[in-house]
Amino acid sequence: MAAARHSTLYFMLGAKADGETNLKGLQSIFQEQGMAESVHTWQDHGYLATYTNKNGMKRLPPIVRGGAIDRYWPTADGRLVEYDIDKVVYDEDSPYQNIKILHSKQFGNILILSGDVNLAESDLAYTRAIMGNGKEDYTDKDVLILGGGDGGILCEIVKLKPKMVTMVEIDQMVIDGCKKYMRKTYGDVLDNLKGDCYQVLIEDCIPVLKRYAHEGREFDYVINDLTAVPISTSPEEDSTWEFLRLILDLSMKVLKQDGKYFTQGNCVNLMQALSLYEEQLGRLYCPVEFSKEIVCVPSYLELWVFYTVWKKAKP
Amino acid sequence: MAAARHSTLYFMLGAKADGETNLKGLQSIFQEQGMAESVHTWQDHGYLATYTNKNGMKRLPPIVRGGAIDRYWPTADGRLVEYDIDKVVYDEDSPYQNIKILHSKQFGNILILSGDVNLAESDLAYTRAIMGNGKEDYTDKDVLILGGGDGGILCEIVKLKPKMVTMVEIDQMVIDGCKKYMRKTYGDVLDNLKGDCYQVLIEDCIPVLKRYAHEGREFDYVINDLTAVPISTSPEEDSTWEFLRLILDLSMKVLKQDGKYFTQGNCVNLMQALSLYEEQLGRLYCPVEFSKEIVCVPSYLELWVFYTVWKKAKP
Repeated sequence: MAAARHSTLYFMLGAKADGETNLKGLQSIFQEQGMAESVHTWQDHGYLATYTNKNGMKRLPPIVRGGAIDRYWPTADGRLVEYDIDKVVYDEDSPYQNIKILHSKQFGNILILSGDVNLAESDLAYTRAIMGNGKEDYTDKDVLILGGGDGGILCEIVKLKPKMVTMVEIDQMVIDGCKKYMRKTYGDVLDNLKGDCYQVLIEDCIPVLKRYAHEGREFDYVINDLTAVPISTSPEEDSTWEFLRLILDLSMKVLKQDGKYFTQGNCVNLMQALSLYEEQLGRLYCPVEFSKEIVCVPSYLELWVFYTVWKKAKP
Repeated sequence: MAAARHSTLYFMLGAKADGETNLKGLQSIFQEQGMAESVHTWQDHGYLATYTNKNGMKRLPPIVRGGAIDRYWPTADGRLVEYDIDKVVYDEDSPYQNIKILHSKQFGNILILSGDVNLAESDLAYTRAIMGNGKEDYTDKDVLILGGGDGGILCEIVKLKPKMVTMVEIDQMVIDGCKKYMRKTYGDVLDNLKGDCYQVLIEDCIPVLKRYAHEGREFDYVINDLTAVPISTSPEEDSTWEFLRLILDLSMKVLKQDGKYFTQGNCVNLMQALSLYEEQLGRLYCPVEFSKEIVCVPSYLELWVFYTVWKKAKP
């Protein structure tokens, strides 16, 4: 027998119809299927009959709709998942996006940008992964961070005695929100936009990258913490992929010949989107090679792919 | 304004009522709330009016009911989560429990015992955690594993050149299922129930522990991979906690004075259940101390607490 299906059957009985007789007629059909029956009679007001198949009934937690707190933030691969969110900490619209910081009992505060779970206070695994998972030596290095407004990457790198870290974040309000509510992630590095070995520019990274490329400035590491690879696997308009390629091309231009470019990719299940991204890597102005790693970021509730890209050695 | 609530309003109109007039009367109410309106008219058959508040409408993935594959395995703290399960690999009832092995696209095969997600092929983090997270030296040590039928712990420990590992698993069918379908987890260690440095006993661990205690046998490590701490935080009947305490007491009896006992606890959100467990630790026949660690096990979709317990040093 196939899995039981969920069906609601309505019977509109004429005034003179005998409900009990009708019910008896139906019973044999369900009983043939080996289903257990439970009938509730409300005097002359009708019947509620439930039929349960032999594997029993599995009760799922209900979806709570209309609450003041939205606990449902589907994964990138479109699965329904419920978070243990118990508080809205911050909820503002910036000129660029909706910025939410919600409190999860187990993950701490979670930054959600326009509906996408970005980073929670539990997610050091994300920051480590996008920095090369502890395999890089940042001492005395020149580093460029694109995005990264939550401050997690900046905070971890400045601990490693770099020469200079430049972070380019377009949205002052992300910094403002995280400064207040994601302290566990970034420490106090965002309290000042300038420190001994770092500076934060509140700017669109495209003109900054163009300026650096024009000036011939080069970095040992470029870390792209901007938007995720587009979820769509069939870009109707090429613009999203063109934007990604523009960022990649400009990043390669400001990357030293032996430098490394790190970025997050997508969830491991969106294989077509990942292939499309890898296709873009083959279409840059200079030949590159890449590796990828699958990482478990606690608050994502799905495995995530991170990329390392470098310039192919000159022959 | 509070979050929009989900409401369905039915209006039964008398035969002579003018639907359009009624609709107009209602419109002003919703428009006052700043809601956007979209009205569909089916000739003279009625209206469908949808009102969306200014934050727009959030669409959630639907719950798929009645499928041949059950993708919903709620977390221990009762949240609704959907897995990316695409295949039922194994589904059998043993004399002790229902044993399912389901294939997840991202986590690989997942072992589910009587509805509880036990271990997936992605979950080396679980095995590492319950072995002390790489901080222990198992060389030449005597180890006792309670449960562990998936073979994950056994497989990892035999790599570390122990003196002897004894694993006591009650359910031959768990071993049989995992032997076939969880190969990534256990390697080939379950192919034989006896090896150079290990033996697997298909027995209830209670009489085995009693026998060992009676014989005065002692182990360097006891790893309890049996059932989780009961989810219930108010044990109506003491038996579950008494069972847990019996296992703990017997384990302490076969543990060397400087030995260590490892076990999984529960999800981090079930704080009352965790406290109740810790209370039991204060009621054993000998004084013990403990530490705990919070670990992200990929397929669990919630953070998990692991315990290390040891005998208090004699004064």
